[in-house]
Order: sequence, then structure tokens, then C-alpha cells
Amino acid sequence: MGLRNRLHEIIYEADTPMGKLFDLVLFFLILLSVVVVMLESVGHIDAKYHDLFLKIEWGITLFFTLEYILRIVSVKKPFRYIFSFYGLIDLLATIPLYLSYIFAGSQVLLAVRAFRLLRVFRILKLVKFLGEASQLSKALRASRAKILVFVYTVLILSVIMGTIMYQIEGEESGFTSIPRSIYWTIVTLTTVGYGDIAPQTTLGQFIATIIMVMGYGIIAVPTGIVTVEYAKHSGEKKTSSESYVHTNTQACP
Amino acid sequence: MGLRNRLHEIIYEADTPMGKLFDLVLFFLILLSVVVVMLESVGHIDAKYHDLFLKIEWGITLFFTLEYILRIVSVKKPFRYIFSFYGLIDLLATIPLYLSYIFAGSQVLLAVRAFRLLRVFRILKLVKFLGEASQLSKALRASRAKILVFVYTVLILSVIMGTIMYQIEGEESGFTSIPRSIYWTIVTLTTVGYGDIAPQTTLGQFIATIIMVMGYGIIAVPTGIVTVEYAKHSGEKKTSSESYVHTNTQACP
Amino acid sequence: MGLRNRLHEIIYEADTPMGKLFDLVLFFLILLSVVVVMLESVGHIDAKYHDLFLKIEWGITLFFTLEYILRIVSVKKPFRYIFSFYGLIDLLATIPLYLSYIFAGSQVLLAVRAFRLLRVFRILKLVKFLGEASQLSKALRASRAKILVFVYTVLILSVIMGTIMYQIEGEESGFTSIPRSIYWTIVTLTTVGYGDIAPQTTLGQFIATIIMVMGYGIIAVPTGIVTVEYAKHSGEKKTSSESYVHTNTQACP
Amino acid sequence: MGLRNRLHEIIYEADTPMGKLFDLVLFFLILLSVVVVMLESVGHIDAKYHDLFLKIEWGITLFFTLEYILRIVSVKKPFRYIFSFYGLIDLLATIPLYLSYIFAGSQVLLAVRAFRLLRVFRILKLVKFLGEASQLSKALRASRAKILVFVYTVLILSVIMGTIMYQIEGEESGFTSIPRSIYWTIVTLTTVGYGDIAPQTTLGQFIATIIMVMGYGIIAVPTGIVTVEYAKHSGEKKTSSESYVHTNTQACP
Repeated sequence: MGLRNRLHEIIYEADTPMGKLFDLVLFFLILLSVVVVMLESVGHIDAKYHDLFLKIEWGITLFFTLEYILRIVSVKKPFRYIFSFYGLIDLLATIPLYLSYIFAGSQVLLAVRAFRLLRVFRILKLVKFLGEASQLSKALRASRAKILVFVYTVLILSVIMGTIMYQIEGEESGFTSIPRSIYWTIVTLTTVGYGDIAPQTTLGQFIATIIMVMGYGIIAVPTGIVTVEYAKHSGEKKTSSESYVHTNTQACP
Repeated sequence: MGLRNRLHEIIYEADTPMGKLFDLVLFFLILLSVVVVMLESVGHIDAKYHDLFLKIEWGITLFFTLEYILRIVSVKKPFRYIFSFYGLIDLLATIPLYLSYIFAGSQVLLAVRAFRLLRVFRILKLVKFLGEASQLSKALRASRAKILVFVYTVLILSVIMGTIMYQIEGEESGFTSIPRSIYWTIVTLTTVGYGDIAPQTTLGQFIATIIMVMGYGIIAVPTGIVTVEYAKHSGEKKTSSESYVHTNTQACP
Repeated sequence: MGLRNRLHEIIYEADTPMGKLFDLVLFFLILLSVVVVMLESVGHIDAKYHDLFLKIEWGITLFFTLEYILRIVSVKKPFRYIFSFYGLIDLLATIPLYLSYIFAGSQVLLAVRAFRLLRVFRILKLVKFLGEASQLSKALRASRAKILVFVYTVLILSVIMGTIMYQIEGEESGFTSIPRSIYWTIVTLTTVGYGDIAPQTTLGQFIATIIMVMGYGIIAVPTGIVTVEYAKHSGEKKTSSESYVHTNTQACP
Repeated sequence: MGLRNRLHEIIYEADTPMGKLFDLVLFFLILLSVVVVMLESVGHIDAKYHDLFLKIEWGITLFFTLEYILRIVSVKKPFRYIFSFYGLIDLLATIPLYLSYIFAGSQVLLAVRAFRLLRVFRILKLVKFLGEASQLSKALRASRAKILVFVYTVLILSVIMGTIMYQIEGEESGFTSIPRSIYWTIVTLTTVGYGDIAPQTTLGQFIATIIMVMGYGIIAVPTGIVTVEYAKHSGEKKTSSESYVHTNTQACP
């Protein structure tokens, strides 16, 4: 077994002790990188520990760089990895610190690091969690078309209601433009209700009431869809037991 | 095949390349008309591009006018189309610009254009989406009576609770009248919670708490209704497989 | 058929034309009485039409009085009616105007009139709505015990979390006492979120986050309960078809 | 039957009249202790009745101390009780008043008393409620792994969206740090929507809209999971009836 194979086993698989250790270290470093980005954004903490944070970031960036190169080297089809979802996130999570010396404001890319947290699903393949997730995502994929129709209907409704509310309430109530009015409609329809904009006229409050009741009831639709789809995918054992009964019945005479 | 038949095919159907092209152009223009109405409402954008927006509006209005006339000409029963839901929306979406020369304030009708977005469901008949939507709307129609009973109960509850809260909190807490108090009750019951009005007295906060817990629990009712109805309409395959088992049983001796 | 029987038929039943007319008039007057109470609470409307409102109230009160007396006279067991739920509401909806001459502030009882709106369910017995409602209420009654357990758990959770938040945030953040802190917890847990009180400290915001996610997830429990119970009550046809298959199987040899 | 056995019967069981009485007294005292802690936190009430509250607290503390000692004495495996969930809560609910003479600020522990309310589930074992609760908790335990996957996905989503919003909105809109931005994202995603922080830029409002619609739709997932799991656990009768059919089929020839 060559070096490339051993590397592949450690980096991509989790059956050997070394593979498990690598995954644990990687998970810890991803978490650390996200926590450091968070703490850097808190003014008074950053003022105190700025140098420490910079050192940690450089350490993590070097580890991520090395890991990225090793992943390319050890995999059979490097281009497939590079242009895969995880490959692109790995790259984008590695480069921000390098870029910050070339472009100002490339710190924006640090947000990408949070995406690496998704790799945890891969790391935890060891346990049964991914099975659960894929069962869920199967149900979600099956109900995708229905949910798209639903979201589209909600959006049209928001545009219609937003335009109406803009013409009823007008600028003095905070509905300064139709896009802002649509923003308010979605805030209301999804029952978030910030209260930064609120209807002032009696007619506006009446229509707001209708939007709220609609939003309150509409939530039943995606819930119904997901529940039914999930029940189908979850009840596959049932059908197999039914086929068992079927066999039994044939053995009757 | 006469000209009227060809027009009908292009405008009302989507099987021919010309029909598909017409639908795509129409969809694009409807979207454009909605976007322009939106942008016109944003003060600083309108100030810059007012002339461009006016030109686009006139272009779209002329297209919509032509389309409306052709729809009437090419259809077999013109009156049925004119007084249908889509026919009325098509008319109302066409006339606002003409009316603005006669009546001031007829801009209000521009909001109607957003309704034309519903035509997208027709345009996308090509793909399977409408099937999904009609399956959904079948479930919704089946649960209509139950949901009406539910909405009526919620409304009575809001009236009762609103009247009680008005007498507990009074004007100094923002509950200036019973209608406004009912508005607050619905804002609370639907868990929107703007916070523009909030109970100040201890008793008022206690009753608000009850309203919240009720609203939090009541949502289960429409969700349950829609889920069960949807499961029925979605599970029609199941019953056919049951009849298959039934046949099998008859073949027993 | 005596006068009492005819009265009973008109007032309590809805099969005869007179009975239907009486129900319609009653429904209209109940609605009117509620609307008048509402409008009286709006300052500037009451200032204008105060005399008119007073006249309408007296008219409605006289009608309700007459109706109440006739209901007692025409029913077989008057005491059972008087102490029934509807009987008590009918009485309480009739007396506020009389009482207002004896006690100041008895206007409070006007809120009771809104309860008479519940009578609509009786009036609409004609149509199938009540059937739907009773099917719903059967499912709700079946899940009552489970929902009580659920509500009790939510309440304990609110008390615990409210006490903790009071000790973390303290008075300067608006958590001035434990009851107020519990009020905030319920506002957050039910996802209402007024924003009149909001955590200021980092630890408080962290715990608030946990409460929100709990509240967001907990809603699944009553929804699940009601859906499953409703599916049982709605799927009674299914079991009858199963028994049909059963019979068929017995006829096998 | 020795004294220890009789004590065990009274304290731990609820079949004898004395056992029931003990449970009732205990339930009343737990409730009283929680109410007193609440009222002490309300400034103007505490000012008036401070001495009374202190006396009640001492009375309850002495009762709890006695109860705790008797529980240890009468149980067979005292250490198992002491380190059990209920044992620790019983201890923590007893000591705060003693500690307040040693450490200042140990009042914090009074919050633990609210946890004793959970004992009610034990006390009400008499009635069927615990059965209901355990049926519920069985369904919740079965869906635990799926809900953990779901919560983890929501958390990652919040971190990603929070980081993005921090970089779009910046400090002037109230998104002063990434942790605070994540707090806002969870407030929005769970549809709580305080409104203490709200996006000001158009891009920020657009992304906020996406987060709201996601949060509005995502709620369907735990609801679907719990409903399906609960339907399984609630439908156990169904499977037993299926096995009955099975037996019947075997008796066929």
C-alpha cells in the first residue's frame, strides 16, 4: 500500500484510528477557526487578544492549506474533488488570509469558513446520524416541487399585498416604497413581526390582520407536505411486512 | 387552419415553439411590469430613471392591450374569457395608464399587475408543477369547510379577548379602542407580536400570556386538518394496491 | 299544537320558514350589538353618533329581554336552560344596560355580548358546518389529556427559565421581577416576541437563543398530537373497509 | 412491617391514604415555595410582606430538610437516590436558605425550586397523565437523533447567515458583532422577531426575507418528524390487529 493510499485512508476515511484522529483534529480546528472569527468581531475582546487571534488564524490557515494540498494529492480524480461542493468550500475557507495581503476587505470570505462546519456531517458518518439526515433529505427532496409551488404562491401574495399596503399606508407610516412594503408583508406573513414598521391607519391594520391570519394558516401547507412525504419514506418497513403477509396468503391452499 | 386558430394556438397553448416563445415573452413582460412599478415607488431611483420607466410602462401597456384584443379575437367564447378571473385581471392590468389621463390616483390599479404573476402557473403548465399545485389545492378545497369553522372560532375568540383586554388595559397602554384591541389580539394570537402595543398591567400581561399559549397551540388545528386531507389525496395509490391484494385473496381456493 | 309549541319551534328549531327568519334576525342583531359596542369605544365615532348608538342598544336590549323571556316560557325544562352555558350567556348579554343605571362601570359586561356570537354555530346547524366542528372538537377532546401534560411542561419550563433570566439580566434590562420575567419567557417561547423586554447581556442573549429554539421545536408536539388524533377520527371509513376484507377472508374455503 | 417500610410507603408511594395526603401536602408546599420566591422579586410586594415571606421560607426549608432526611433514611439504596436527578434537585431546593448565611448571592439557587415542580409528574402518577406523558416522551426519544441533526443544521445555518449579515449591515444597524448577529439570525429564523435589532440596508432586508421564509418553512421538519414518530407509537393497536388477521389467515384450510 503506497503513501497516497495511506493518505487517502487517513483523510477521506474514518475506519482506522489515524483516520478518526485526523477527523477529530479537523473538526476541532474548523470549530476553532469559526470561534476565532466570531471573537475577532467583538470589539473589546479583539482589542485585548488581537495578536493571539492572528497567530491562531495563521496556524489554522497553514493547516487548511496543507490539508487542501494533501486532499488533491491523495485523491484519484483531483479535478472532481476541486470542483465539488466540499472542494470549493475547502478552497474558499483557506485563502482569505492570503488574499487580505492583496485586496482590502477580503475578510468577507471568512464567513465561508462557517460552511466547513457542514463537513461535520461527513465526519460523523461513523455514527448513524448521516443515515437519519439522508432519510430526512430524501423526504425534503421528494417534496421539493410542491414546496417550490408553495414558496412561489407566498411570494406572489407578498408582492400583491405589499403593493396594496404601500398605497394604503403611504410613506408617513414607514411604508416608504413597494420593496420595503413587501419586506414588511413577508415579516408579517411569516409571523416574525419585528415591529420596526407597523400599520397606522384602520384600513391598514384591517388588511394586516388578514395577512396575519393567512400567514398563520398557510404554515399548515409545508408542514402537511413534509409530514406526508416523511411518513412515506419512513414507512418503507411497513410495505415490506405487507409483502410478507402477501407471501403467507399465497401459501394458503 | 385559419388565422384565428393559429392565434389561439400561440396565445392559449404551449405545445408549439411559437406558443412557448409567446409564453416566455409574456412572462418576462409581466415580471418587468411588476419590477418597474416597484422601482418607481423608490424615491431616489424614480428621480433618476423616471423617463425610462414611463417609456417601459407605455411599451408594456401597448403590448398588454394588443394581447388582450388578440385573446378576445382568437377565443371561441369571448364573453366567457372577458368575465373569467384571468380575463378581468388582464383587463385591469392593462388600463391603469390610460385611466391616469382621466382620473388622478388611478395608479392604485397598478397593484393589480402583480395578480398577473398568477398566470405563471398557466405558463408553467408545460412542466409538472401545475399538477403538484392542483393536488395541493384539492387538499385545501377538501379542508375548506373545516378551516372556515376554525377561522370563525379564532375571530370570535379575538373579539372576546380584544373586548376584555380593552377594559383591562384601557387607553393609557395603547388599547385606545375595541377594534384596535382586537387588532392587538390577532397580532398576539398569530404569534406575530409587533410590540407596537403591549400590555402594561400585571392582569393584562397574565391574559396576554393565555392568548399567546392559545395561539401557540391553536396552530396545530389547521396543520392537522391540512396534513390529514393531504395524506388522503396523496395516498390514492395505496387504495389501488389494496384492491390488488383483494383480488389475490379471491383467487384463494 | 299550542302556542308554546309553536314558539319553541320558532325559537329553538330552524326547519320552518319562521324559525329560519327568527334565526337570521337574531344573528343580525347579535352582530349589530357587537359592532355597536366596538364603535362606541372609538372616541371620535362615539362623539358623533352617541345618541344613535344608545337608541340601538336599547332596541337590542329590549329584543334580547323579550327573547330571553320567550325562551324560558317556551322550553319544557326552564331551569335547565337558565343554568346552561347558552342560558347564562343570554342573560349576561341582556342585563348590562339595566345594570348601568344601578352600578357605574357595569359596561364591563358588554364584553359578554361577544360570547353570543358562539350561538352562530347553533344557527348554522342548518348547514353541515357543525358536523365539521364536532368532528374537530372530538379530535381535540381526545387529545385533551396529552395537551394538558404538554401545557403543564411548557409552564414549568417558563417558570424555571423565567427565574434564571431574572437572575441573569436583572432590573436594568427590564426583567424587573420574576412574574415579569416569566411573562417575557412565554412571549419568547411562543415565538410572539414583542420586543418590549429583550435581553441585553451576552449570557442572557445566549439563554434567550436556547428558549427560542426550544419554543420553535416544541410547537411540533401539539401539532403531532392533534394531527394523529384527527387522522384517527377522520379515518373511520378505513377500518370499516378493513372489516369488509376480513369477512371476505372468512368466506375463503 | 417496620417503621422504615411505613415511611417508604408514605413518602415514595401513593396507594395509601397517608401516602396521598403526603403527596398533596408536598405538592402544595412546592407550589407555595415557588410563589413566595416569585412574590419576593416584586419590589412593592416584598417591601410590605418581607417578614411573612421569610417565615414561610424558613417553614418550607425545615419541611424540605426533614423530607430530604426521611427520604434518605427510608429508601433501600440511599446513594442511588442522593445522586439521582430528583435527589439532587431535592438537595439543591433545600439548601439555599442555609447557604445565604455563609455566601452572599446564593439566592440564585432559589431558582432550582422551580425544578421541584417536575415532581408533580410523579405525584400525579395516580391518574393516567404520566402514561400519556411517557407515550409522548417515547415518541420524542425515538425522534431524538433526527431532531439533533435538524438542530445542528439550523445552528450552522444561523452561524453562516449571522456572519453574512454582520458583514452586510455592520455596526451602525445594531449588528455590532458576529455573536450578536447570530443572535439576531436565530431571533428571525425562529420567527420570534423582537425588533430590537432590524436590518436597515436594502440588501440586508432582502437576505432577512430569505431567512424568514426559510425559518417559516423549516418548522415543518420537526413537526413532520414528531407527527410520524407519534403516529407510530400511537398506532400500536393497529399492528396487534394485523397479527390477529394473520392468525385468522393461518386457520384458513
